[in-house]
Amino acid sequence: MNGLYLVTDRNCCGPRLLDRVVLEALKGGCMCVQLREKNLPTRPFIEEAQRIKAILAPFRVPLIINDRLDVALAVGADGLHIGQDDMPYTEARKWLGPEAIIGLSVEKWADVEQAQDLDVDYLGVSPVFQTPTKTDTTGAWGLDGIKKIRSFSRHPLVAIGGLNAGNVKDAVMAGADGIAVVSAICAASDPYQAACELDSIIRDALKNRNTLSQ
Amino acid sequence: MNGLYLVTDRNCCGPRLLDRVVLEALKGGCMCVQLREKNLPTRPFIEEAQRIKAILAPFRVPLIINDRLDVALAVGADGLHIGQDDMPYTEARKWLGPEAIIGLSVEKWADVEQAQDLDVDYLGVSPVFQTPTKTDTTGAWGLDGIKKIRSFSRHPLVAIGGLNAGNVKDAVMAGADGIAVVSAICAASDPYQAACELDSIIRDALKNRNTLSQ
Repeated sequence: MNGLYLVTDRNCCGPRLLDRVVLEALKGGCMCVQLREKNLPTRPFIEEAQRIKAILAPFRVPLIINDRLDVALAVGADGLHIGQDDMPYTEARKWLGPEAIIGLSVEKWADVEQAQDLDVDYLGVSPVFQTPTKTDTTGAWGLDGIKKIRSFSRHPLVAIGGLNAGNVKDAVMAGADGIAVVSAICAASDPYQAACELDSIIRDALKNRNTLSQ
Repeated sequence: MNGLYLVTDRNCCGPRLLDRVVLEALKGGCMCVQLREKNLPTRPFIEEAQRIKAILAPFRVPLIINDRLDVALAVGADGLHIGQDDMPYTEARKWLGPEAIIGLSVEKWADVEQAQDLDVDYLGVSPVFQTPTKTDTTGAWGLDGIKKIRSFSRHPLVAIGGLNAGNVKDAVMAGADGIAVVSAICAASDPYQAACELDSIIRDALKNRNTLSQ
């Protein structure tokens, strides 16, 4: 889960099709795509997931479905991202199998402690900063929150919430392995350029961090 | 799928808990319960389904989940009801297995024809009459629609939409095997009495119909 991670938001993509934004993000270096649809009926969600899966295939980038195990099963997605209000982890693992990538959002310290005993593939540290694209969370972790989770958790960390070219270096240096963005790519005037810039900063920061820690 | 079939609507239950309305419907003769939640996050939907399943167990009445295969799998429900905008039938069958009850809503004639080749357990004829509890449908089948479907389809028919004590006899005589209601029980001042009355009319009509057809 190292690198740039795109979480989709159709409503944020403006007049461009989501499909095109995803393709440009992939060309720009995005390593993982999470399809997030909170208001789409099941059938069109499945159809969209099938389209996005086909776009991802030549890049060998995994498709993660937000919340909906049914959609993940129906399209044969690579994984599922669950929040604290979604499917319990053990049920998701039972149906998706040991190879699936399962990510879990942590929104408070008790979530981090509970996740320690689960074989999740990464923790979504959510939100790092307050953001208008996700309003159902309480508080924000901040960079100190990432550091605190990093010093405790055995899982890779994907930071999300209010991240952009101006602060992703700090998030990586604080301990984030992956950087998830929504509007920094979906709402960018040029999603390809935005992804390239973010990817470059994240890779440099990861190298820098790894050098410092040796 | 013969008899009285309850489709839940929490918002319709007023100050009474859904759990209590379901229990009273079961005591009143309800033969099947479909849990329908279009706006509940996954985790509370699963928790509600687990509660309702426990209430149904002593009555040996099947629990059908509306739309959400993930919830059905997580709670081990007896079946799934899918609409034309939900999970494709073949995917639902693949994950739920041959023993599960899978119902499919038909909203236009093409749906009825397509369903003929599917091993669905019943067709939901939806809506029979216009109703305020479900607004995403086009047109209404009417009693003539039930007759037309009955003369063509090989599947049991569950009629839904605007059915109440005043018209369920006609729906059964037109060919409905099951009668699904939402507000006729959920919004009734006495859900137990409402269920008893509906159950009595439906059973008499089924006997009457079967006698006439011999």
